[in-house]
Amino acid sequence: MRADARDNRMRILSAAEDVFGRSPAASTDEVAKLAEVGIATVFRHFPTKVALLEAVLTQRLERLRDRALELADSDDAGLAFFGFFSQVVAESASKLAIAEALSASGTVAGDEAKAAGQGMREAFGSLLDRAQQAGAVRRDAAFPEVYALLVGASRGATATGLESDARDRMLALLYDGLRTGTS
Amino acid sequence: MRADARDNRMRILSAAEDVFGRSPAASTDEVAKLAEVGIATVFRHFPTKVALLEAVLTQRLERLRDRALELADSDDAGLAFFGFFSQVVAESASKLAIAEALSASGTVAGDEAKAAGQGMREAFGSLLDRAQQAGAVRRDAAFPEVYALLVGASRGATATGLESDARDRMLALLYDGLRTGTS
Repeated sequence: MRADARDNRMRILSAAEDVFGRSPAASTDEVAKLAEVGIATVFRHFPTKVALLEAVLTQRLERLRDRALELADSDDAGLAFFGFFSQVVAESASKLAIAEALSASGTVAGDEAKAAGQGMREAFGSLLDRAQQAGAVRRDAAFPEVYALLVGASRGATATGLESDARDRMLALLYDGLRTGTS
Repeated sequence: MRADARDNRMRILSAAEDVFGRSPAASTDEVAKLAEVGIATVFRHFPTKVALLEAVLTQRLERLRDRALELADSDDAGLAFFGFFSQVVAESASKLAIAEALSASGTVAGDEAKAAGQGMREAFGSLLDRAQQAGAVRRDAAFPEVYALLVGASRGATATGLESDARDRMLALLYDGLRTGTS
């Protein structure tokens, strides 16, 4: 891909994340406008709205995975784990809107989005391991239930329209539960 | 409604809860078979599948509300609160399947289901108040975040396909967080 084509692709993805994150039913036209490219350029990169939605979802999951991998080198394993958890929950409303738009179009996530999701889960699992080894998270908490809490906190906050201060209090409750018995 | 018509209606609702809870895309025909009534009888009571789904959802929410109201008289306010929380999460997979079938049909919950949902939330709020007064749940946990945790635990467990032992461990983590600082 030539440099200007790559640049266009990134602008379209970034605009699509913004537009569909706010309003999943928005049109590809709105994405083209925000990205300041012609609609033909959007369709050249993403032949359908579903293809565009999938690319946006994949990009978000990859970004979260990269963030988790970055944090895995952090000195404070507890801070890294809880910081990542909070970030996923804070960003979940627009991510869920995009996933919902995909499922409303009758599509399930494609292979790329699935692989990115798997990468994110694994990176989150490493953060959990390190936080447990450092004594910041209780050792009797296994991955399946901690991951269910991450997904659940995201969906619960979004489904009930939680304000950000209540979301912080919700996370504080959860984190106390995850720390119980560590000290 | 005559007694036999009432009886038929209850059998249809109970069969529909079973059938759609397992498989939201199931047909009204399967409901009629399980209820051992003719398909015409189903349509006499519920003209459309959407009407039937709404009635099932309303019935479930009313049943949960009634259970919460019953528990509000219990001597052990902590046990009542945590017991109800666990029951909602344990029953959530089939309830979410029914809600999903409704939303897949492009319908939002009607007035009856909404009123039943509101009644359930209020009854849950009373259980929380009593558990806090009894010192079984921390007093700095406000309703919005505790309710988001109830919804979130249900959705997280369902979305990640949590086994029942992992679900119990997830709830134990949550409950420790809700109890922190009470003793």
